[in-house]
Amino acid sequence: MSSSSPVLPSEIEAILNRGDLIAAVAQDHQTKEVLMVAWMNREALNLTLATSRVTYWSRSRNELWEKGLTSGHTQRLISLSYDCDGDAVLLMVDQSGAACHTGERTCFHRGIELEK
Amino acid sequence: MSSSSPVLPSEIEAILNRGDLIAAVAQDHQTKEVLMVAWMNREALNLTLATSRVTYWSRSRNELWEKGLTSGHTQRLISLSYDCDGDAVLLMVDQSGAACHTGERTCFHRGIELEK
Repeated sequence: MSSSSPVLPSEIEAILNRGDLIAAVAQDHQTKEVLMVAWMNREALNLTLATSRVTYWSRSRNELWEKGLTSGHTQRLISLSYDCDGDAVLLMVDQSGAACHTGERTCFHRGIELEK
Repeated sequence: MSSSSPVLPSEIEAILNRGDLIAAVAQDHQTKEVLMVAWMNREALNLTLATSRVTYWSRSRNELWEKGLTSGHTQRLISLSYDCDGDAVLLMVDQSGAACHTGERTCFHRGIELEK
C-alpha cells in the first residue's frame, strides 16, 4: 500500500469523523449482480483504495476483514463511487467464487413474497 | 394495504427485535444500476411489502418516508430479497425519474480515484 492515505470526500470524512461506519455495497462489475452489503471504517476504506483488495470492518468481530483472505473468495476492486450523503459506497468488484459464506454467489439469495 | 403484517424471515426479525435498522439497497430492475442505500424499520418494510410503494425510515428526520411522495420520483417494488444475516434487503425497483435528490439518476454519481 502507499505511504500516505488518500484524500476522502468531505461527505465521507463527516461520517467517519463522528465515528459512524460506511455501508459498502459490492456489485459484480460484469453481471451487475449485488453480492453483499458490509461495513467500512476509515482504515478499511483506505486499505481498499490503496490495495484494490476489498477490506471491510467486521462489526461482529470488531476487526478488519480482508474479503477472501481465509476463503480465497477475494474481491478485487474495479471502481468505487459514493452516495450523495457520504454514508455509503458502491464497490464494483471482480469476485472470485462465492461472495456469501453459505457458498451462494450472492448473499441476497432468498426472497420475500410480495403481498400483491 | 393488507390488514395483517407479513411474516418476516427470522434473520430479519432478530435484527428488528434488537432495535436495529435494516439497510436497504435499491437497484433498477432493468438496468441493474444501484440507485441508493437507505434504511428500513419494521413499519417501513411492512408498508413496502404491502403496498409495493417503497417506504424507508429517515434516520435524520426520524419518520417514515415514502419515496417520491413529494418529489414524484417514486419507486415501485418489483421484488425483494434479503441477505444471509438479515440486516440488509435488496429492492428491485421501477424508478420514476431521479432516485437522487440532486436530480441525478443514482445517488452514486461520484467516484473516488483508485491509487493504482
